[in-house]
Amino acid sequence: MKFGENCIPQVSIDCVVFGFHAHQLKVLLLRVRSMEYYALPGGFVGQEEALDEAAQRVLQERTGLTELYLEQFYTFGQRNRGEIEMQQKLAEVNQLSSAEWLQKRFISVGYYALVDFSLVKATPDELSDSCDWYDINQLPLLMMDHHQMIQKALDTLRIMLEYKPIAFNLLPENFTIAELQRVYETILGKELIRTNFQRKILSLEILERIEKKYTGGAHKAPYVYRFKSTKKPHES
Amino acid sequence: MKFGENCIPQVSIDCVVFGFHAHQLKVLLLRVRSMEYYALPGGFVGQEEALDEAAQRVLQERTGLTELYLEQFYTFGQRNRGEIEMQQKLAEVNQLSSAEWLQKRFISVGYYALVDFSLVKATPDELSDSCDWYDINQLPLLMMDHHQMIQKALDTLRIMLEYKPIAFNLLPENFTIAELQRVYETILGKELIRTNFQRKILSLEILERIEKKYTGGAHKAPYVYRFKSTKKPHES
Repeated sequence: MKFGENCIPQVSIDCVVFGFHAHQLKVLLLRVRSMEYYALPGGFVGQEEALDEAAQRVLQERTGLTELYLEQFYTFGQRNRGEIEMQQKLAEVNQLSSAEWLQKRFISVGYYALVDFSLVKATPDELSDSCDWYDINQLPLLMMDHHQMIQKALDTLRIMLEYKPIAFNLLPENFTIAELQRVYETILGKELIRTNFQRKILSLEILERIEKKYTGGAHKAPYVYRFKSTKKPHES
Repeated sequence: MKFGENCIPQVSIDCVVFGFHAHQLKVLLLRVRSMEYYALPGGFVGQEEALDEAAQRVLQERTGLTELYLEQFYTFGQRNRGEIEMQQKLAEVNQLSSAEWLQKRFISVGYYALVDFSLVKATPDELSDSCDWYDINQLPLLMMDHHQMIQKALDTLRIMLEYKPIAFNLLPENFTIAELQRVYETILGKELIRTNFQRKILSLEILERIEKKYTGGAHKAPYVYRFKSTKKPHES
């Protein structure tokens, strides 16, 4: 779907894709072509397309994944969020014929996604030079209000962790409790007590134990778990 | 601000205004003129207006209150949420010249507000016959996806109660702990243990005790509290 073609005017979506790797919480960012800014993966909403469908489409294009855990978290609609000058330059640089359409203030619906880092094939869009992961604590210069979007997504994720066992979506299919605990600790930005965490997670009865991880010392090998459902808890 | 005049096309806002009265959680609804439906207070967003400002403006018009506790909670963007036929009829009945503008699918940003029931002067808009309170457990027939909006607002409110002491906004300035507990119980739909509730609320150190409520039997009179801040916690 191209700019302006049968899209809802002045509405966009932006996606904060969270991944977990090397003890870091990461987000997927695009380097905007010929500009100094980075941007969240985003796009527009077709007249015949649901907001959720638009977000899924954008994320499939950027990650190669068709079924990912996705939640709408906030809609950004400040008066000054347009940065019309930047939008003009973006249109010029990329010789967009639909420049007029783009040079308006947009309201943007924010989604966050939790993905298995190892499965993502990061793919830039037609206005970007690159698409890559960045540590959430070392973000490059972001366009418009995208930094605020990431912060709001993280705030929401921290709250929602208490209500839904969604952190599994950041891990491969099989994982140890210690790996899961590291994900929680990284998102929450604090250490958790191992025995309490293990008791709490297991009491939810959402994990099944499948095997011991081979570590060379069998008596110390941790158990490996997976989420009980055959599907990840997209709909939980 | 009238339909279509310098508004962002295909974007609306809808507000779930919660009030508390006679042990009931209530929402403010409009009876749509010449139709069988009720609707949430809503409106459109000016080109030069922030989403939050639009919500404040709509709520001031419907409630007479200028400073109320307001939170954006979800943006509704299903493909079929338009009910174009109903919108056509609404335009016809009200002889709206901007009918064409109205006959498109809209994306609606949902806000919920928590208000002191006793201060609200419920005022219908130009397309409605009445504006009144309804028990959330006995709602009339609602237009479009407004029933879903109320449910989503309630779900969010229940989660947010754990994080922010926002329930005070539903009470008059001065209240007893028992009154506050009834608000929590009504929203959460379950009974809470009195001593635990009192300990938890007081441990937050956000209330100040101002006097005893006169009940005729002084030794049993409960203490009256108010929120410590001079302003209600709109920004907490």
